Amino acid sequence: MRTTDPDNTICLRLCLFHGAGISEVCDAISNLDGVLHSIELVPNQRHSSVHDITIMTRGKKHADSIIAAIRALSDIKIEHIAEQPAFLIHLGGKIEVNSKIPLNNRDQLSMAYTPGVAHVCIAIAAAPHRARKLTIKHNIVAIVTDGSAVLGLGNIGPEASLPVMEGKAMLLKDFANVDGFPICLATQDVDEIVQTVRNIAPGFGGINLEDIASPRCFEIERRLKAALDIPVFHDDQHGTAVVMAAGLINALRLVKKNIADLKIVFSGIGAAGIAGTKILQQLGAKNIIGCDRQGAIIKGRANLTDVKRAYAKITNPNNESGPLNEIIKGADVFIGLSAPDLLSVDDIKNMNQDPIVFAMANPIPEIMPEAAKPHVAIMATGRSDYANQINNVLAFPGIFRGALDVQASDINEEMKIAAAYAIADSIDKISLTKDYIVPSVFDGHLVNTVARAVAAAARKSGVARE
Amino acid sequence: MRTTDPDNTICLRLCLFHGAGISEVCDAISNLDGVLHSIELVPNQRHSSVHDITIMTRGKKHADSIIAAIRALSDIKIEHIAEQPAFLIHLGGKIEVNSKIPLNNRDQLSMAYTPGVAHVCIAIAAAPHRARKLTIKHNIVAIVTDGSAVLGLGNIGPEASLPVMEGKAMLLKDFANVDGFPICLATQDVDEIVQTVRNIAPGFGGINLEDIASPRCFEIERRLKAALDIPVFHDDQHGTAVVMAAGLINALRLVKKNIADLKIVFSGIGAAGIAGTKILQQLGAKNIIGCDRQGAIIKGRANLTDVKRAYAKITNPNNESGPLNEIIKGADVFIGLSAPDLLSVDDIKNMNQDPIVFAMANPIPEIMPEAAKPHVAIMATGRSDYANQINNVLAFPGIFRGALDVQASDINEEMKIAAAYAIADSIDKISLTKDYIVPSVFDGHLVNTVARAVAAAARKSGVARE
Repeated sequence: MRTTDPDNTICLRLCLFHGAGISEVCDAISNLDGVLHSIELVPNQRHSSVHDITIMTRGKKHADSIIAAIRALSDIKIEHIAEQPAFLIHLGGKIEVNSKIPLNNRDQLSMAYTPGVAHVCIAIAAAPHRARKLTIKHNIVAIVTDGSAVLGLGNIGPEASLPVMEGKAMLLKDFANVDGFPICLATQDVDEIVQTVRNIAPGFGGINLEDIASPRCFEIERRLKAALDIPVFHDDQHGTAVVMAAGLINALRLVKKNIADLKIVFSGIGAAGIAGTKILQQLGAKNIIGCDRQGAIIKGRANLTDVKRAYAKITNPNNESGPLNEIIKGADVFIGLSAPDLLSVDDIKNMNQDPIVFAMANPIPEIMPEAAKPHVAIMATGRSDYANQINNVLAFPGIFRGALDVQASDINEEMKIAAAYAIADSIDKISLTKDYIVPSVFDGHLVNTVARAVAAAARKSGVARE
Repeated sequence: MRTTDPDNTICLRLCLFHGAGISEVCDAISNLDGVLHSIELVPNQRHSSVHDITIMTRGKKHADSIIAAIRALSDIKIEHIAEQPAFLIHLGGKIEVNSKIPLNNRDQLSMAYTPGVAHVCIAIAAAPHRARKLTIKHNIVAIVTDGSAVLGLGNIGPEASLPVMEGKAMLLKDFANVDGFPICLATQDVDEIVQTVRNIAPGFGGINLEDIASPRCFEIERRLKAALDIPVFHDDQHGTAVVMAAGLINALRLVKKNIADLKIVFSGIGAAGIAGTKILQQLGAKNIIGCDRQGAIIKGRANLTDVKRAYAKITNPNNESGPLNEIIKGADVFIGLSAPDLLSVDDIKNMNQDPIVFAMANPIPEIMPEAAKPHVAIMATGRSDYANQINNVLAFPGIFRGALDVQASDINEEMKIAAAYAIADSIDKISLTKDYIVPSVFDGHLVNTVARAVAAAARKSGVARE
């Protein structure tokens, strides 16, 4: 998004009737010394030509005079006024449910609906697994949230989480031709969430859990995986973990280190931190130490939650204790999924040779790349405005594409690891540099590469059904 | 659907690669004396040109030889073989979830998803009602079933009901530009259904209950209407009732009778029969008598269910008792929602002058039009192959369009009655004949007419919110 000053920006949605031209609008704006920042046509409008325009002004009074001038134009209606262009594109929602086949006459109607549809219903009633071939279950994923941990915004509730879930559905469709549908729950009770998702599951081919707070996300995922015969995938855990693992695979290729030999420090032991730890262990990591605000997580530490007590059992084999800035000494890899500015340049100087720093706190990382880069071998963040963005958009579309392509009953560890290697391997030896360890989200081939790898892993591990 | 003999028909889905032509397929079929019945292009296929073809054969052996000949062609792959063309159009499901706005570059991504989407989330978190404007809640209806009373097929379960719910979503979109999404439940327990629908309701602007068995449909509808601030509409009850009422309004205009003076007999007191009775009472009917297999429903009759006991209280004011063929004597109107062949020509002869017979049992009506028509003033059925089809497709798309246009909190009696009059009034005085009392489902103006009437009734009755 080109930057605009929100205090001096207005965004208008205009309907133009009877072929009224946008040029009159432009004239009205420039006559009053407004600056036209952008015009975008809104697609698929039925009854008029609709445009979103963004205008830079000198303040509220100036904006009001421009609005009044546009209102005075004939055959042009201001349908909405907003301070943020994002509001205009969200009007009425960002996704829609369309027919895949035409319905223009009685013949088509009687095949897609009664009486023709009855043949298909009877066939599925006799063998419900046929729904995986003959219905949308073949290709659709429920994007389920309770609105409790949305983006960095926290517990904002189901309605407010809907724009994010719609965005996720757009990404699934645009990147992987997977249909996604938002299910935003009016409950944050684990039992009710599990029961509700079980009850709606027959119509879906997969469940993507999204933005559900820790620790309840773990129990929900575990119980749903046990109860359902379709994949259940908590993207905040596993999507992030897969892309982080892919980035680390490539980083280690560059610094020529073996993961089994490394000291790896995690800062932030939430959903993504735990999943990230587990996938790195699957890749061979032996010495991972997790840190929270109280320092290293170690067996027997006071006040550990159940989740962290379990974490202590599988990590920190040398029982190191102390604050992050002690634990970081001699570490080869820092994985940050925590909070801004937790890591200092001195901390990095205390790391082992060729340190690798993934500072993924959003939007402000544990250390800014400008400060860290002179002292690290490889640096990654969660941000799109720096090199090496660890973005789960690189993983989940291809993972679900691959799982649905073979109608998998699960997304298991083998499939996640296959996805991580597919993402890492999508960068060839010549292109691989310290500023290019993960591919671009707009890499058009990535989804198919990941999907093929995930589907093959599903077949090999016995969860493929097609 | 043009009729084909299923024993001598095969349907193939063919993928043509590298520009292979369909003409070679046609040649292969005619060389073997097969008859090509139809070719249809399957839209929106990404990687090849896909066609569904239907071929008439002389039997299985002949069909196999034709299939073998097509298989031998190069660059053509038979993807599916089916006996019914309906199976081919259902492959992979009939609906999809699409982005309404493009997502081609980082700017668009950062408005529809993070970070731009956060502005919208924050605005909705501050005032959740904004979701009705800024999300898909603005325009989407959940099509909820427990799979317990699907079409005439009975309790076939959630997976098998999915093709019908997908068809319903297609109708909502194609007829009324309403987004519909199937929710097929893995439970038939009333408490669980109510709780599940309440839990998923934040993301929807309306709930359409569909094909849920009586009597549980009544309790589910009542409890959800009380719990939710979005419309809850059981189409099997109210959709059918509205269209039946519309047909009767026009029938009475033709025979010049006043509804308050009439004896109206219902056969079949299920979901649609009860809703139909209530809407006719709203229109002024005084003397309605319901019949089930045991005859007239009358206060004090043995073995009445709760639902029928309540029905007895509001109907049959003269306490008539006896079987249908007694009760029908002197009736002005027969409304059948029951079973084939329950009404005889003698029964009709015993009705009052200018009898009106709506025999809507599907697929075989209570009396066939051929037998009844010489003896009735007006005849209607539920079938598309006779005049006057009482089809709820005439009602629900416009009703939901109108409710969503004003973001109604309910679909109340006023709105249903407005819909019934709008459907009836869509036929002008000159066009209104005994064989044309309800409009065609392909009447392109009907949806808007119904929607406007429903929206106006919502405003007048105080349930509109926009």
